[in-house]
Amino acid sequence: MALHMKGVSYEYIEQDLFNKSELLLRSNPVNKKVPVLIHGGKPICDSLVIMQCADEVWSGKGASILPADPHERAVARFWAAYVDDIMKAATEEARAEKAKEALVGLANLEEAFAQCSKGKPFFAGDSVGYLDLAVGCNLFWLEAIRKMFGVTFFDVGKTPLLAAWAERFAGTEMEREVVPVADSAVVFAKKLQARFGSNTSAK
Amino acid sequence: MALHMKGVSYEYIEQDLFNKSELLLRSNPVNKKVPVLIHGGKPICDSLVIMQCADEVWSGKGASILPADPHERAVARFWAAYVDDIMKAATEEARAEKAKEALVGLANLEEAFAQCSKGKPFFAGDSVGYLDLAVGCNLFWLEAIRKMFGVTFFDVGKTPLLAAWAERFAGTEMEREVVPVADSAVVFAKKLQARFGSNTSAK
Repeated sequence: MALHMKGVSYEYIEQDLFNKSELLLRSNPVNKKVPVLIHGGKPICDSLVIMQCADEVWSGKGASILPADPHERAVARFWAAYVDDIMKAATEEARAEKAKEALVGLANLEEAFAQCSKGKPFFAGDSVGYLDLAVGCNLFWLEAIRKMFGVTFFDVGKTPLLAAWAERFAGTEMEREVVPVADSAVVFAKKLQARFGSNTSAK
Repeated sequence: MALHMKGVSYEYIEQDLFNKSELLLRSNPVNKKVPVLIHGGKPICDSLVIMQCADEVWSGKGASILPADPHERAVARFWAAYVDDIMKAATEEARAEKAKEALVGLANLEEAFAQCSKGKPFFAGDSVGYLDLAVGCNLFWLEAIRKMFGVTFFDVGKTPLLAAWAERFAGTEMEREVVPVADSAVVFAKKLQARFGSNTSAK
């Protein structure tokens, strides 16, 4: 999504997370995780690091990902790191209890949305920015969690601003163009269940 | 340390972490943690966010904290986030097992030091930078952990490069000037023990 925002062309290589490629293991030996951006032959790992790097490498190109003001950048970075922590806890272990624990942190994020967006549609204002991507890149996983455990992260009743934001984000032209496979959250959820032996069924 | 590097004057307010001030709770309601930088009346929370913000706000002043090259910045950000995760795990719960788990991650950091420093004394090269501060700001806590549980993080035998780096970092004029209280790691360790009821004694 960051590369799409910068208007940079790239090759997308899908990873089978249950059978990781040599390229992934070699490019991110520490965490062995996607995403990895390979630019000029050098790997850059971790979503938040990739976004910031893309914004700096192609600073004159496309839309700005981070805000221009240092204080606003700091606020966006703070919340992006916060969301990253919540989402890691929620998705890594693929366990219902972990997902439920992570829900608690969302009340703070609802508050952050009100403060950052100032009544506009996205965290960054009129269009998507760093924090929108930081939260938005998890929507796929959260959908898998929802299908597995019935845990709804952006609940209309509990976090109405985030729920409306998530619909808006999913409806952006970018999200539709960049997110590759239509139904793969279900497929992924089923694979996760087979792997971790959850006792709930994917719906 | 970041403000010191930028040559910015500031007021340092010590926090009693066992009796947090109203100012801290109001400034960082989400995490209720130090450090918080208050600049222009607005709070900025989280060490890594503060460092980047200081580098941007006072970009023309003092030394650069982050490297100039986008790829090097990405590498420094990746490892800084990695260290932050390890250190949170090691220090937050003040438990010997957690501290020992965190040790495992240090082998990767030893490797990172070799790659980043390219034979020079600091992660950032000839003088300290972002990753040096990201690791270095934990030395106080690690000393408390060592005194409580006898877990040595930067062990000369296991991670010789990091052990030598830590000595070098502790010997910088900055570290001596900025770190406020000489013996407080011992005091802190004793308070932690009283709080968490560790069965080892502070030495």
